[in-house]
Amino acid sequence: MRRLAMVVVVAFIIVLGILAQRPPAVAESVASPQVLPDRRVTFRLLAPKASEVAVSGEFMSGSKPLQKDEKGLWSVTVGPLPPDLYAYQYMVDGLKIIDPNNPVVKTGSRPSTTASLLEVPGDRPAFYDARPVAQGTVQVRWYASKALDSQRRVHIYTPPNYDKETSRYPVLYLFHGANADDTAWTSLGRANRILDNLLADGKLRPLVVVMPFGYAYAPNDSGGVGLPNSDRQASGFSRDLIEDLIPFVQANYRVYTDREHRAIVGLSMGGGQALRIGLGHLELFSRVAGFSAAVPRSNVAEAFKEVAANPKKVNDQLKLLWVGCGAADSLFAADQAFSEFLKTSGVKHTFRATEGAHTWQVWRRYLYELAPQLFAQS
Amino acid sequence: MRRLAMVVVVAFIIVLGILAQRPPAVAESVASPQVLPDRRVTFRLLAPKASEVAVSGEFMSGSKPLQKDEKGLWSVTVGPLPPDLYAYQYMVDGLKIIDPNNPVVKTGSRPSTTASLLEVPGDRPAFYDARPVAQGTVQVRWYASKALDSQRRVHIYTPPNYDKETSRYPVLYLFHGANADDTAWTSLGRANRILDNLLADGKLRPLVVVMPFGYAYAPNDSGGVGLPNSDRQASGFSRDLIEDLIPFVQANYRVYTDREHRAIVGLSMGGGQALRIGLGHLELFSRVAGFSAAVPRSNVAEAFKEVAANPKKVNDQLKLLWVGCGAADSLFAADQAFSEFLKTSGVKHTFRATEGAHTWQVWRRYLYELAPQLFAQS
Repeated sequence: MRRLAMVVVVAFIIVLGILAQRPPAVAESVASPQVLPDRRVTFRLLAPKASEVAVSGEFMSGSKPLQKDEKGLWSVTVGPLPPDLYAYQYMVDGLKIIDPNNPVVKTGSRPSTTASLLEVPGDRPAFYDARPVAQGTVQVRWYASKALDSQRRVHIYTPPNYDKETSRYPVLYLFHGANADDTAWTSLGRANRILDNLLADGKLRPLVVVMPFGYAYAPNDSGGVGLPNSDRQASGFSRDLIEDLIPFVQANYRVYTDREHRAIVGLSMGGGQALRIGLGHLELFSRVAGFSAAVPRSNVAEAFKEVAANPKKVNDQLKLLWVGCGAADSLFAADQAFSEFLKTSGVKHTFRATEGAHTWQVWRRYLYELAPQLFAQS
Repeated sequence: MRRLAMVVVVAFIIVLGILAQRPPAVAESVASPQVLPDRRVTFRLLAPKASEVAVSGEFMSGSKPLQKDEKGLWSVTVGPLPPDLYAYQYMVDGLKIIDPNNPVVKTGSRPSTTASLLEVPGDRPAFYDARPVAQGTVQVRWYASKALDSQRRVHIYTPPNYDKETSRYPVLYLFHGANADDTAWTSLGRANRILDNLLADGKLRPLVVVMPFGYAYAPNDSGGVGLPNSDRQASGFSRDLIEDLIPFVQANYRVYTDREHRAIVGLSMGGGQALRIGLGHLELFSRVAGFSAAVPRSNVAEAFKEVAANPKKVNDQLKLLWVGCGAADSLFAADQAFSEFLKTSGVKHTFRATEGAHTWQVWRRYLYELAPQLFAQS
């Protein structure tokens, strides 16, 4: 009886705590997004005074209008959608907003990145879902960058049991895209889940993954990115990586320190960084890949002049050169031209032309496909 | 010359990458929030079709209307504000939204938590700001909870040089409030920065801080929190902590495993949890504190019956019992009554009645004040 009374009292305390912090948010009782059993998805928004509401998201091109009921509750149903994670936003009378009823928010280093995140589950856990297997750790570290005269944040994945082993690991340097930050590969990319699952399935040699912040300096929030700023960004990022981050990782983690055990991979802006830095520093990297990489559409041979000049060296030194892009990606033509340039130059590589656009649906799958190819299992 | 050409080309690649990912967001060129040199802050929102826009935030009570110019750009200036971090939101024709021009977003486990974050810097780094000192690590770990039959996420702070030392550390279990999650104490609370700074200033004995997720089960997003659910939440959280999380921490971190080196602290809902679990498990904890703790306003003696029954035991066992609350907090009366109850019962404790409301401005300061008192420096 005393125990029961205690439980009731504790419950009361918790309720009181919850009530005390709850704002008078009418909208919170709106279920949105609601995934229906057949994987159609209903989006809702309570906005009695709005005259036009639409939803846009990675599950479709363009946008779709919502319909208003007599209480001012707007809604629309889309799909069925393939199981995946999708970013989406509302447009309310010309104002782009996130879904105020969805607590899962995609964030980055620029406001244009902010979006709500929809998860459409499948019948079984996806390759990026948590499964009851051994879990790695994601470490958030700060390191002193002499090259940039600042403290920089980096996310580092260590595989399960890293703390309890004594062996060394190969390292993957993994870069995010424009407007994102160093949280992106674990929050949106689910890199840790993907690698945990591959490891549990015996498909991957354990490795450490280093996910730095891709901007050397604060991205210009004004949106006016001039050449001088980008110039500083590119050279600053490269110097920080080579002069500060790689030495920091090697001083603080049990990783191999030779090029044979070092890979460099990125997506979009980070794909351009990975290809440029990787192909420009064969003495540091033996595996190089770009996902939907931002490479120039023309003058590729000029941009990758050192590759064109000595394709044999590239072939001799690289164990893997991989470029992937979705056919609906605005960078597809550029990536295809880059692959053609490599072919013409006689540089061995893989070009994966897949379905998909410039989205994380594509990049999660690329990581899942590529990671096992990076380092051979012993 | 060749080097210069390369730099230009690299810059071009980066620009291309940025342009490729930039959405056609007119609003992105709006500067908001803008902190003026005198620490007044201007909020802006481009919403030509809106008829009413207001801002609300932790820097004031109530809300303040924005004024529209001929281009549909709404703005208002507030302050000057004391240097601090403040959550804020816009209300646009009755719809609560975050600032679409601010990439820094406060998130949690419920949508009501979502807000934009304003940082008003001072002339010198604040106690919660990054300084050029040794930095600890924040680890994101997953552990198997037998009590809850699930994989649970936890954030764990280890002090600078943890990896390179061989000594053991005391542990602080630190809980977030309702609607938040296990990211809150590092993202909003800046716990890692506060502790790094205290350590650098020689004011703190190095410790490990464990920040679990405060809900045993998914918080009910419908907002209808009934007693049965809260009951399950409270007992589930306590069982997970005692049966799974503490053993996990002790198996994976170099921490002391005796009660003398274990503290339990929380804020709001988590303050209620810390006081209930801490005072209910003197065999496990020697330091107990609640920040703006959710304790019952009446029947305190009933809720903390074991304390009233044996105040001597509490006094003998606890090295510290600390309760703090801001005078403008809706929980102030309850916390004051709790302190009165302790006093009447003859239980030694500290009651800190401070300025402030139910906000992180208060809780960051409490951590800064309390952390050095937890474990004596050797």
